[in-house]
Amino acid sequence: MRITSTMAETRELYSGGPVGLVPTLGFLHEGHVALLEAARDECGTLAMTVFVNPLQFNEAADLERYPRNLERDVELARDAGVDMVFAPSTEEMFPLPVATTVSLAPLTARMEGAHRPGHFEGVATVVTKLLAGLRPDRAYFGRKDAQQLAMIRRLVVDLSIPTEIVPHPTVRESDGLALSSRNVFLSAEDRQAALALSRGLMAAANAAESGERSARVLEELVLDTIAMADGVVPEYAELASASDVDRLDTADVDCFLAVAARVGEVRLIDNVHIDVNPDGVVADRGILMDRPSVLYSQAENL
Amino acid sequence: MRITSTMAETRELYSGGPVGLVPTLGFLHEGHVALLEAARDECGTLAMTVFVNPLQFNEAADLERYPRNLERDVELARDAGVDMVFAPSTEEMFPLPVATTVSLAPLTARMEGAHRPGHFEGVATVVTKLLAGLRPDRAYFGRKDAQQLAMIRRLVVDLSIPTEIVPHPTVRESDGLALSSRNVFLSAEDRQAALALSRGLMAAANAAESGERSARVLEELVLDTIAMADGVVPEYAELASASDVDRLDTADVDCFLAVAARVGEVRLIDNVHIDVNPDGVVADRGILMDRPSVLYSQAENL
Repeated sequence: MRITSTMAETRELYSGGPVGLVPTLGFLHEGHVALLEAARDECGTLAMTVFVNPLQFNEAADLERYPRNLERDVELARDAGVDMVFAPSTEEMFPLPVATTVSLAPLTARMEGAHRPGHFEGVATVVTKLLAGLRPDRAYFGRKDAQQLAMIRRLVVDLSIPTEIVPHPTVRESDGLALSSRNVFLSAEDRQAALALSRGLMAAANAAESGERSARVLEELVLDTIAMADGVVPEYAELASASDVDRLDTADVDCFLAVAARVGEVRLIDNVHIDVNPDGVVADRGILMDRPSVLYSQAENL
Repeated sequence: MRITSTMAETRELYSGGPVGLVPTLGFLHEGHVALLEAARDECGTLAMTVFVNPLQFNEAADLERYPRNLERDVELARDAGVDMVFAPSTEEMFPLPVATTVSLAPLTARMEGAHRPGHFEGVATVVTKLLAGLRPDRAYFGRKDAQQLAMIRRLVVDLSIPTEIVPHPTVRESDGLALSSRNVFLSAEDRQAALALSRGLMAAANAAESGERSARVLEELVLDTIAMADGVVPEYAELASASDVDRLDTADVDCFLAVAARVGEVRLIDNVHIDVNPDGVVADRGILMDRPSVLYSQAENL
């Protein structure tokens, strides 16, 4: 495995296609590893990027305290069979003050976009840069960031980027908590309280599979569950179309029910993907781990 | 030569590099032909695009009356040795309502950007799309659109698009008028009056080469020349840095003096590139044709 610092160098190392890309902010957890393993199975060459993109942090404090551990990320990538880790410096990524912004206003006005001004422009700009510069045939993104996934799928259509965007199910602790690099900041008590998010979503997924179609009813199921948990402050629960992120009144084909909440000092998001098709309703609840995750909980690595 | 309607089909026809791209709005004049010939000399495969991009027209009437003649464009491309003409339908380019916007606010707030709201976002979005989708090694743009050229050069750096942007000098009628597809709309009288733009710019270029460095003095030379022409209404004359389009007080390395004016119903732009280097001042006034252009004046083709 090679560690690269420029895109040109990375491209020169490609050997055999399809070329897969897993873009990350680093500090890998088992969710990233599952993404890498799925990509490994499908790609002749597999590249992973580690870049804590300053453009997508709307709060400077959040950028500063975002956890980092490149050494461990490189080890995990090697174990997962990654061929190259592109880990650029900020100077390599932005040799000039960034004048270019890529935005998808219609898909990012709501939910995360409303709560994190500038966040999605930062993501869209850097994802465009990684796809344009590294030219992968396939790029892998987790369903955990459902609105981001919807935005990126539209981005590649709008900009004719010949990269297939491949979604991967959310990976969850065995008790349901969605893996996130931010979980490391939860106190033991908050960690328990945070389960209200996934519990609410699972209740809604069950209801949808039992025939409930009303978006407001499904959203209330999530919010009511959260209301019962101490110290969890919801920001929103919304059912939205996965193709254009329009808020829905009724569950439909290819949509997602997303929730955001503050648990103590930590802001968490989660969602279930719901697909209403002629044969019935299929909810993608994610993948439950059969044992506790070990990677992100190593707070001593911060 | 092949005519293609999808980007994937176009890419499949590449044979031998470097792959060159000349993006156009069609209705080719001798300026485009010069660009094609320069590209032909340097590229193993040469693609030209013809697409009247609706995103970059800030006035619907302007879009509607923009001249079109694909048949003649194809003939000229064939004569110039182009390998493929990519001439997509609007539906092919935009299968979904466009949600993505690429903008370079710091470089487009002034001059053309100030007078044509939305224009540069439309250009940046479609140029990003053409470069991402067609993946040329080199793309050719005329210096006639100096601010556009500055924007595109920054765009490929910011988005790590591995395409070299190659500028080409402005091609001028033997009396100095810069070629433009819009010239066809000038009446005989306006055609004469329009010479004030290039006359003013040449006077300023001469002054710069004779040692004048003051941006305000150079700009006034242009505006004073225009003021003497009947029916020419200036919008601006500005000296700007070619790297970031900042307005300058003093002529410097790699800058351009640009002018925009309305001549009758027609809006014209022109500029000279000025480079102040240790050996002196070099002005790129463009290329004077030795005989009248014949292509754009065929109003019967409209």
